[in-house]
Amino acid sequence: MNYQMIRYVISRILWTEAVLLLLPLGTALVYGESTLPFLETMLALTAAGLLLGRKPKQTALYARDGFAVVALAWVGMSLFGALPFVFSGDIPNFVNAFFETVSGFTTTGATILTEVESLTRSGLFWRSFTHWVGGMGVLVFVMAVLPMTDGHGMHILRAEMPGPSVGKLVSRMSDTAKILYGIYLAMTLLEIVLLCLGGMPLFDSCIHSFGSAGTGGFSCRNLSVGAYDSPYFDVVIGIFMLLFGVNFNLYYFLLIKRFRDVFRSEELRAYLLIVAAAVLAIAVDILHLYGSFLESLRHSFFQVSTIITTTGYATADFNLWPTFSKGILVVLMFFGACAGSTGGGIKVARIVILLKASWGDMRKMLHPNAVSPIRFEGKPLTDKSVRGVHHFLTVYLLIMTVSFLLLSLEQFDLITTFTAVISCMNNIGPGLELVGPMGNFSQFTYASKLLLSFDMLVGRLEIFPMILLFAPSIWKRRVVWRHNL
Amino acid sequence: MNYQMIRYVISRILWTEAVLLLLPLGTALVYGESTLPFLETMLALTAAGLLLGRKPKQTALYARDGFAVVALAWVGMSLFGALPFVFSGDIPNFVNAFFETVSGFTTTGATILTEVESLTRSGLFWRSFTHWVGGMGVLVFVMAVLPMTDGHGMHILRAEMPGPSVGKLVSRMSDTAKILYGIYLAMTLLEIVLLCLGGMPLFDSCIHSFGSAGTGGFSCRNLSVGAYDSPYFDVVIGIFMLLFGVNFNLYYFLLIKRFRDVFRSEELRAYLLIVAAAVLAIAVDILHLYGSFLESLRHSFFQVSTIITTTGYATADFNLWPTFSKGILVVLMFFGACAGSTGGGIKVARIVILLKASWGDMRKMLHPNAVSPIRFEGKPLTDKSVRGVHHFLTVYLLIMTVSFLLLSLEQFDLITTFTAVISCMNNIGPGLELVGPMGNFSQFTYASKLLLSFDMLVGRLEIFPMILLFAPSIWKRRVVWRHNL
Repeated sequence: MNYQMIRYVISRILWTEAVLLLLPLGTALVYGESTLPFLETMLALTAAGLLLGRKPKQTALYARDGFAVVALAWVGMSLFGALPFVFSGDIPNFVNAFFETVSGFTTTGATILTEVESLTRSGLFWRSFTHWVGGMGVLVFVMAVLPMTDGHGMHILRAEMPGPSVGKLVSRMSDTAKILYGIYLAMTLLEIVLLCLGGMPLFDSCIHSFGSAGTGGFSCRNLSVGAYDSPYFDVVIGIFMLLFGVNFNLYYFLLIKRFRDVFRSEELRAYLLIVAAAVLAIAVDILHLYGSFLESLRHSFFQVSTIITTTGYATADFNLWPTFSKGILVVLMFFGACAGSTGGGIKVARIVILLKASWGDMRKMLHPNAVSPIRFEGKPLTDKSVRGVHHFLTVYLLIMTVSFLLLSLEQFDLITTFTAVISCMNNIGPGLELVGPMGNFSQFTYASKLLLSFDMLVGRLEIFPMILLFAPSIWKRRVVWRHNL
Repeated sequence: MNYQMIRYVISRILWTEAVLLLLPLGTALVYGESTLPFLETMLALTAAGLLLGRKPKQTALYARDGFAVVALAWVGMSLFGALPFVFSGDIPNFVNAFFETVSGFTTTGATILTEVESLTRSGLFWRSFTHWVGGMGVLVFVMAVLPMTDGHGMHILRAEMPGPSVGKLVSRMSDTAKILYGIYLAMTLLEIVLLCLGGMPLFDSCIHSFGSAGTGGFSCRNLSVGAYDSPYFDVVIGIFMLLFGVNFNLYYFLLIKRFRDVFRSEELRAYLLIVAAAVLAIAVDILHLYGSFLESLRHSFFQVSTIITTTGYATADFNLWPTFSKGILVVLMFFGACAGSTGGGIKVARIVILLKASWGDMRKMLHPNAVSPIRFEGKPLTDKSVRGVHHFLTVYLLIMTVSFLLLSLEQFDLITTFTAVISCMNNIGPGLELVGPMGNFSQFTYASKLLLSFDMLVGRLEIFPMILLFAPSIWKRRVVWRHNL
């Protein structure tokens, strides 16, 4: 383990967070609110960054270091990111503020607030801006900004980016990061403009664009997007959530006119197929609640989009919908969006790989001598990559089960307990019953809030960075040394 | 595919069922009930067996044939096994009778009856006897009785026996089957004797011993084992359920004094550890409901035993227990008992393999150069066997998800829908809410009952025989021929 380099990268990430705080600080100035909460936090971040040390000579980072950097960076950013809420009194309790910030950075959107409209404008801005930062990844951002030797960044990108496999778009890592952030920024700006054109105030447009870009789900209104009760906003936000749930590599392919690669993407086709099927099935199922098919289609589309992309905005209380619709939404909560997008969940790519691998195994059972490899996205699926997805699924289910049992100690009903866990692990936001679209997470104890914060980080960082953080061998110099020939 | 041989084996299985019907027929004679329902069914079975043809020259069976035989045999036995209930009027509707019989043979114990005490004695006997027959496996029984060339039987045994891998105990297949059935019979008789000694009527003792031996769960009392309200019966049945949840190979090792193999069994130790932990946790959690620790320990022990072994007897309505206890029971519903036992579920062996494989993969992430293979039951875990377990898990989750969505069309609540599916797929019997220990499956439509019957068969036959039955290539002679060089 290269501890000095890890410390160095973390220190630069904290400084980056200090710079990012300039935006809510500006908001505070615009609305005449106190800038102190942000100034104090920026001071703390700068001091912490200074303490963590300077760039070492040896800058090599191994896969292990990548995991450690990512996990520590996210925890550190959330710890400091919670301070403005505490300082401003928006969320006086630190554990609550930490939960809210983790929920923000991980783009979950689960909240402990029973009421958001009384928060300071600058607080609301920072709360939603964490979605935007967390969506594409904090370290991807740092890499886009800081010059880094190639190969070192790859391990970090791999540990932070969602999906079964991550590739570089262009040969230089930092260029890849810049391209991704460029597309991300452009799409966010487009959504802000479209929302403003529909008559949404600029502030609200920013908040909801940050939330959909990061597939987070924090709103500045208690009734979420439902507060505007406008089909136009529902459709714009619904479509943008879906767009941000697509693998960003595909947008790059669009930019460089490799259209064939886009249309051939198996994951994209599976994703759109699932969305279309779910929207139709739910629209029919809730028809009797909304009268007209167009109205039920509108709510069905928005809800499917918000759940499969793991955003979590609400326009309707789907807690009151029939069981079939709720069942579909619960299943979609597990699916999640595409790999390489800002969405959470298992990811459509993994689902497709799992099904294809099983299909292949089943064929082998019937025809042991037939040899025809299973392919995904044009390439043969190696046993190693399938094993990786199976490994992910196993640990995912294990953490879900343990979290479910621990949370059930709170003795809320089973649905609340179960959907709270899957909502946090998949970075969605709302669950059902007490944590439904119109509920919140305030009723849980501090211990449960920390558990759910862990689950949110596990979900966003795709399990392994968070788990490996607890591996003793990562912190025992000698043991690591022995293995690390 | 050797269709003639498949037909031949099925015909012998139907004849075996006709012979097995002599027992309920005897019961009818003893209680002075009509013997006609059984005589008519025996006639139908004999006729069907005759129609299916004679032993062909070519007796070789491939893996594919094994799957087909097992799936068809179980469906066939259930179709005919339902007839006595229809003929006697105990369950006049054929779909209901079929559901009940599938539930019997698959040792699920889910019932569509709202009231069982008004059934004929002979009907109750047959209903519970199907548990006993299904527990160890119908085809294992046929192999114990019919002389068969070795190697042919192995594919059938492998397709019918639960667990990730099946070995022969002794070199001859039919001897293995005889040993297994011998142990099974002896343990069942011992339980009958112990229950009679405690004052349970002989008839009731047989019913509850069949139910615990097969880990089925049908009772002759509406309140299940709770009707006797006797700590002695609770403890005896609780212990026997646990014993029937152990891999039967271990009993054979005990018989031939290979004690070390028994104590070294990782699966057995994991199984007992899980049981002990669950019993203690629940006993503490429900203490306030029962007053004394001994009383809550009694109910906790019985409930954990009945759920992890997937039996499904009830002494208490755990639907009314706190969420933590219900949460533990729901998790145990997935675990199931040991491989090679009569219990259902994923099986402890698979859970251990999944965790060990993930542990190994995680270690590899941290120390890519370290080589130390993962071992299970003393042998290194091959990638192939791990892939098999992952494959099982994937298809298991897939069928569960699809069944859950289809069943949610009934618009019962989510907990009822979800636990009905997992209860049937894991061959348990009761779920929660409407299908809880004091509920039943009568409220579902015929379509749902058939779906759940399919799920029960999928669970008992460990998925693949039932799934592969729907593979077109299994029925297309030419396609199979081409692959089957």
